[in-house]
Amino acid sequence: MTHDDRHPFETGLDRTGANYVPLTPASFLAGAAASFGENLAVIDGERRITYAALYARCRRLASALSGRGIGRLDTVAILASNIPEMIEAHFAVPMLGAVLNPLNTRLDAATIAFSLDHGRARVLIVDGDFAPLVADALRLVRDRPLVVEVTAPGAADAPFDAVDYEALLAEGDPDYAWAGPADEWQSLCLLYTSGTTGDPKGAVYSHRGAYLQALGNAVTFGLTGGSVYLWTLPMFHCSGWSYPWAVVAAGGTQVCLRKVEPAAIFRLIAEHGVTHLCGAPIVLSMIANADPEVRVSFAQTVRCATGGAAPSSTILRTMEELGFKVTHLYGATESYGPGTACLFQPDWADLPTEARYARMARQGVALPTVEGLMVADPGTGRPVPQDGVTVGEIMMRGNTIMKGYLGNPEATGGTLVGDWYRSGDLAVWHPDGAVEIKDRSKDIIISGGENISSLEVEEVLTQHPAIMLAAVVAKPDATWGETPCAFLELKPGSAPLTDAEVIAFCRERLARFKVPKTVLFGPLPKTATGKIQKFVLREQARALS
Amino acid sequence: MTHDDRHPFETGLDRTGANYVPLTPASFLAGAAASFGENLAVIDGERRITYAALYARCRRLASALSGRGIGRLDTVAILASNIPEMIEAHFAVPMLGAVLNPLNTRLDAATIAFSLDHGRARVLIVDGDFAPLVADALRLVRDRPLVVEVTAPGAADAPFDAVDYEALLAEGDPDYAWAGPADEWQSLCLLYTSGTTGDPKGAVYSHRGAYLQALGNAVTFGLTGGSVYLWTLPMFHCSGWSYPWAVVAAGGTQVCLRKVEPAAIFRLIAEHGVTHLCGAPIVLSMIANADPEVRVSFAQTVRCATGGAAPSSTILRTMEELGFKVTHLYGATESYGPGTACLFQPDWADLPTEARYARMARQGVALPTVEGLMVADPGTGRPVPQDGVTVGEIMMRGNTIMKGYLGNPEATGGTLVGDWYRSGDLAVWHPDGAVEIKDRSKDIIISGGENISSLEVEEVLTQHPAIMLAAVVAKPDATWGETPCAFLELKPGSAPLTDAEVIAFCRERLARFKVPKTVLFGPLPKTATGKIQKFVLREQARALS
Repeated sequence: MTHDDRHPFETGLDRTGANYVPLTPASFLAGAAASFGENLAVIDGERRITYAALYARCRRLASALSGRGIGRLDTVAILASNIPEMIEAHFAVPMLGAVLNPLNTRLDAATIAFSLDHGRARVLIVDGDFAPLVADALRLVRDRPLVVEVTAPGAADAPFDAVDYEALLAEGDPDYAWAGPADEWQSLCLLYTSGTTGDPKGAVYSHRGAYLQALGNAVTFGLTGGSVYLWTLPMFHCSGWSYPWAVVAAGGTQVCLRKVEPAAIFRLIAEHGVTHLCGAPIVLSMIANADPEVRVSFAQTVRCATGGAAPSSTILRTMEELGFKVTHLYGATESYGPGTACLFQPDWADLPTEARYARMARQGVALPTVEGLMVADPGTGRPVPQDGVTVGEIMMRGNTIMKGYLGNPEATGGTLVGDWYRSGDLAVWHPDGAVEIKDRSKDIIISGGENISSLEVEEVLTQHPAIMLAAVVAKPDATWGETPCAFLELKPGSAPLTDAEVIAFCRERLARFKVPKTVLFGPLPKTATGKIQKFVLREQARALS
Repeated sequence: MTHDDRHPFETGLDRTGANYVPLTPASFLAGAAASFGENLAVIDGERRITYAALYARCRRLASALSGRGIGRLDTVAILASNIPEMIEAHFAVPMLGAVLNPLNTRLDAATIAFSLDHGRARVLIVDGDFAPLVADALRLVRDRPLVVEVTAPGAADAPFDAVDYEALLAEGDPDYAWAGPADEWQSLCLLYTSGTTGDPKGAVYSHRGAYLQALGNAVTFGLTGGSVYLWTLPMFHCSGWSYPWAVVAAGGTQVCLRKVEPAAIFRLIAEHGVTHLCGAPIVLSMIANADPEVRVSFAQTVRCATGGAAPSSTILRTMEELGFKVTHLYGATESYGPGTACLFQPDWADLPTEARYARMARQGVALPTVEGLMVADPGTGRPVPQDGVTVGEIMMRGNTIMKGYLGNPEATGGTLVGDWYRSGDLAVWHPDGAVEIKDRSKDIIISGGENISSLEVEEVLTQHPAIMLAAVVAKPDATWGETPCAFLELKPGSAPLTDAEVIAFCRERLARFKVPKTVLFGPLPKTATGKIQKFVLREQARALS
């Protein structure tokens, strides 16, 4: 076809440097520095970092790493709590076209060493607070990365050779002309998921996906230049659900938090006018059950996004009373964090309180940047009826689904199947479009041929005033096949509770076959991201029978 | 290079149907219908259209057009006021991969005929209110498109053969499985700019650009599912600044408005709880100067975005008193509408009133989806100092810059130069990053070797209580080269004003050389988009000398 035969809409209308730029979340910082240079980007204790300063620090870091030979697709791992340097890494490493690998600070040295080797980390940035853990991990790695240490207040000297983070920055150019990726599909982040079995899998994000996820979150969560975001979600978790980038895209302020504890949360909310925070259920539980003497009152409403497990009606009620507006989200490392959000609908305001809380506890509807969401039959891949009853698997598709697992085509092929990401989570699909997780398949307890949703039993248990956390699993039973076994963590300072009292409480609120036959008390085992480790409890329940 | 030699981050991590979907604004409607099916998408008089119904109607339209042979890159023109069918076309036509060409309803028949021929329109959707204009245009076109008529209440039968819009919809399938574009760079919209000289130029948008512009506007302007957007901006203007898509991305409601007039604006704001509107300066002027008896009070604050000319302090003050929060925007057809926004900064609240209004009247900073904004020397293309004094040309780059002008490589090459879109607008760049237009170069009056900004003189003139609109142009002068000549439109019902009074008013507020030497009264000539036609006034001033 000659030039003249081309369609007029395909002639003289090509991509140029003026009208096409590969998407990358790093550009949000360049934009914010140009637009809001003197506005506060980051607050960390007494430290204040403006957008102009943050951008200069990130360019220094990118420049210094480049000077040390780090470039396109080289892996830069980071093990840190929610400190400013963690935010800086989320911009500086993408500027280079390198890959950021945030590591879970709650993991053991062997798993960290596995991740460093598997991801071929060439640099490891370490928060001094975790020096002992890193020292152990470094003894196990095959190839030792360049270690960069961020000095932590009060931490001892690191027991390994490391470049000081600020000294590294001093090597760099604050006006560094970074190039970003030539292709927006290029790999941006590597996030190991803490699976319950086997080696961790490394989900890989693209620049395109992170850029879009940041905008999708900003729209869904209402981030603006006036937003003040408190870091109660670990930034190593799905790249902080994209908030390191989303808050910057909106020009808001991020408030760092090294250790998530109720007193600090309340104090920072009041002191800095926090408007938004995210967190696992344990964070909400911590806020809702905070000692009255650490509860500082504040005038603003704080939007609080939570995912991982549906918030109970008790938690929702207490959070509302304290001035929080809770939005339940759903997603996974594979979907860059949130894929759905349970957006409050105007007509819910008229519902009776418990019905309203039940609506708010759903997983909700797709973010605008998600291209498809369905509950489908895992066998046929066809959507189930939107009847609120038929159970299927949650599936999603779009640009905010991971590229795949690093070096693991089998796992990738089992997760990205055809045009869909298969979450492995079982749910019903409501007529209004909202999805609601009924249970992960292994969390369904089958007793005497009847299905029992462990979530339903847990929801009832957490309505008890003395119970802080509840986990219900199947206990093998000679007569019934399985029976529900409840593990309970009580609120600090609550009166002692007996298993008979718990069972009586459940009998008033549940069908008899759903009432736990066995009740145990004590702290619940949790994963590094705060999820209750049901597989541990399942083994304990099995050992009892 | 064999497969095994590829970088691990480029192996087994390819695009699939699960993790890569070409961006198109049409997908926002599919998402909103799935997420908020029963929520109100469109209000038009007594009509109410839910998201489910809107999506079904759009799929019908796409399906019916497909059945009529319309497909990839075929042009569908539309000549309509802000009616629901205009919104429908913004989704149905992109679903087909066809190109939507919204036409300016205020143009003459010859210009409309030119556009239809130049854009090779295969379909023309006509709002019955404009049937006489279209009849004239159809007599002039080379190739007659299929004409589809939307019946307008009270309008006479169209004097040409046309398919009824609702009859066309009845041909279509409400469950039509639309494909969207295979490539997000594909052309989406064709928008002719009403230049002051020569034939109109057709700016071409891409699916990618419109998708990103919609999200950028949603974040910048704070659109949410609770937003109610009133259509006071013509939707044919830069595709309504992307709001037909942006409001849907957020899940909000669009309120249609056939004729922009103060009584209707106030009534709809109060009746539907409008939260957002956009408009040319004439819309703000209309609201601010509305007859007290049509001013209906309302409880909410209405966010009002305006562009085209800086709002005067008088307008800003009155709008604030009436309950509007004005944001000044800047952009062009070539930048999908808004490229910058003058976002209110917290420290402005402490400024004296006039200083605050002066800040708010700047063009502001780049939207987060704009990749670059600078004020640069048009000769060298290098940025000018950010000193608030040095004048240069506003240049932008990014994915929300047009692909180019249809069939006009010369004009494209003169506008997209290297990596930048050249706006032709002259501005200064402030230390805080905001750009401020001093004048289009031709609007600078040079009198006795001194530069006079016509904007500055106009700002003073509109502070006069009797003056509604002011335009100042150069009048050739034997002694001074040029002198300022003021054309004034007075507020309805205001007392008569003499040129001597106006000159005395200006003398108190301006350097003597800036005071208009000539003052004329009467209605000002305006373009189809409501801009004052200074070139007409310039000719009149020239004729006076």
